[in-house]
Amino acid sequence: MSSPATTLRAELQQAPTYFEPFLARFFQESAERYAYGDLFEPLYLDMTEFVTRRGKRIRPLLFLSSYRIFGGERPFENNSLLRAALSLELLHAFILVHDDVIDQSEKRRGLPTFHKLVEERLGKIDGAARFGENVALVIGDILFAMAVDTLRSTDFEPDRRDAALAHFLRYITDTGAGEIYDILLGTRDIARVEEEDITRMYTLKTTRYTFEAPLVLGALLAGLGADHLRELAELIEPVGLAFQIQNDLIEYQQFKGVDRLRQTDILEGKKTLLLRAAYEQLTDVDRSFLQLCLSTRTSNDASVSKIEQLIDKSGAVELLTRQMESLFQKAEAALDHSSFSPVQIDGLRLAFSLVRQQTQHTGTL
Amino acid sequence: MSSPATTLRAELQQAPTYFEPFLARFFQESAERYAYGDLFEPLYLDMTEFVTRRGKRIRPLLFLSSYRIFGGERPFENNSLLRAALSLELLHAFILVHDDVIDQSEKRRGLPTFHKLVEERLGKIDGAARFGENVALVIGDILFAMAVDTLRSTDFEPDRRDAALAHFLRYITDTGAGEIYDILLGTRDIARVEEEDITRMYTLKTTRYTFEAPLVLGALLAGLGADHLRELAELIEPVGLAFQIQNDLIEYQQFKGVDRLRQTDILEGKKTLLLRAAYEQLTDVDRSFLQLCLSTRTSNDASVSKIEQLIDKSGAVELLTRQMESLFQKAEAALDHSSFSPVQIDGLRLAFSLVRQQTQHTGTL
Repeated sequence: MSSPATTLRAELQQAPTYFEPFLARFFQESAERYAYGDLFEPLYLDMTEFVTRRGKRIRPLLFLSSYRIFGGERPFENNSLLRAALSLELLHAFILVHDDVIDQSEKRRGLPTFHKLVEERLGKIDGAARFGENVALVIGDILFAMAVDTLRSTDFEPDRRDAALAHFLRYITDTGAGEIYDILLGTRDIARVEEEDITRMYTLKTTRYTFEAPLVLGALLAGLGADHLRELAELIEPVGLAFQIQNDLIEYQQFKGVDRLRQTDILEGKKTLLLRAAYEQLTDVDRSFLQLCLSTRTSNDASVSKIEQLIDKSGAVELLTRQMESLFQKAEAALDHSSFSPVQIDGLRLAFSLVRQQTQHTGTL
Repeated sequence: MSSPATTLRAELQQAPTYFEPFLARFFQESAERYAYGDLFEPLYLDMTEFVTRRGKRIRPLLFLSSYRIFGGERPFENNSLLRAALSLELLHAFILVHDDVIDQSEKRRGLPTFHKLVEERLGKIDGAARFGENVALVIGDILFAMAVDTLRSTDFEPDRRDAALAHFLRYITDTGAGEIYDILLGTRDIARVEEEDITRMYTLKTTRYTFEAPLVLGALLAGLGADHLRELAELIEPVGLAFQIQNDLIEYQQFKGVDRLRQTDILEGKKTLLLRAAYEQLTDVDRSFLQLCLSTRTSNDASVSKIEQLIDKSGAVELLTRQMESLFQKAEAALDHSSFSPVQIDGLRLAFSLVRQQTQHTGTL
């Protein structure tokens, strides 16, 4: 007889065969609801294309895992369960669309970002780039409303559904606060950015809606009580941070590799833990060099090479690799000492490993 | 003995004495919920200042009117009733913040727009304008989440509250679609913009969340049934359109007056019914002139004067004034023939007159 974790693993492997068609059908069936006339129609198709792009669907998968781990009994093909999973994917899409406008990114999942899609369709008119961004800003708002309404219109027990909505809105606010940290830290010299601020930014901007929201909402809708939900959220925090350090390291390897002219955190002036650790480890002279290169980094290959040399020289990569390993181990240990049952712990270990594997493939979610 | 409409009028005059302190207290009491650290704190204060700026509170007032007209019995100082009223004001704040980013506006209610507040605080750093816009984009998202959560956390009967949330989210989507019409019509030559598109844009972008949302939500939470809600929404549509035509006319008078260099719809390339009517009424030669001046309008005083002359010459102001009067009359007539009771009709007449009076003061809400 197979263990519950093995059963869960098998069930999760089937999940995309329910989720992907559900996602496509959702946009087809909602077309009438969003029939705002000829001018809007192409944008609705763009939204459909954007959300249905091949993604890893880590949030829906974590949500379904958690629902099952904490005793939820609906089959994965249940309409409301899939709607709740979808609400997390729509939330992700909304955040990506706004984030790409903020960062003026050009590519997302290997294709144009939303504002670039719109800009391209507008053709060579004055201000096409700005119009594209403006339309994307509003489409992000519409995806936000869509995400909330998709969770609202599920048939879970009313009190649980209401608590899920309250959590969902709170995660959106947390993510916004994290985004604001990201923007404001980007305006500061690296010397004036504390490790604590970057850690807080990572937790608020990514951990909350990527890891905590799916796991907490799944558990909540399965009936887990408030105290255990808090414990679960605390268990997730180090995994989220470890994930993001791994992400920084992978991005840095890509930056050093063939892809140097691609948009990266360093070129965007982002304050990452890697950059902060490098600054911390360097001598005063090298710190000044690093600050200078960062302030002149725009498309200046000499500056970019120098930043790379300084980061390598600092030993920050090795330091962060150890920190990441230590966080993953800390998370494992905390799991073993948690108040959850052995079967639940096994399930959560599987969920955590999903996160880790996802990162190792490409470093983005 | 006073009529119900007189009683309602007296009650509405008292409403600000409940609403304004409630609004201020809401931000004070929510401070802990939004305590995201030192970097976020000044922005929370900015949000508070922005929302508590002197506004006409037309949405909360229409909401309270409608709740009372359709038999809601809670006193206006009831916490949940004020929360629901506040959710509409927060929704308005979210839309204003995003709208001002889109239009790159500098002033709102006589003070700096949100993105300008942030830009000013950042001081003379590279890209301060863009950082200000990015922060405002995210603050808009947070106000959006705040608005939905404020309506969610009321103690109305669960089915009604859920229906109110569904409507609320739908109005947000409608407003977004209207905003997209506004952006996309702005990219087109006036000859390629149909009156129907502008009318649709007005209805979606403003009528829905400014007039329909408050009146329908008030009625819904008071217990009005779905059929009557639909009838109510239909009654509101011509009033909303008339209001916006009046708004166009007032803005045009301001444009012609001392305030010519102030940001106006014409300078922004907005496609208003006034501009469209002018184009429609002009001869072919004058149409070409108008198109040329619109395409070179940026801070070019000669073009701007010519546009003004052409609009005056076209007779569009007189035409639109007649259309506006006719819409207000049509709305009155429809009200008299509606299925609502004489007392309800009197109440709605009062609500409609509130809208009309508000516009006559300053032309903005």
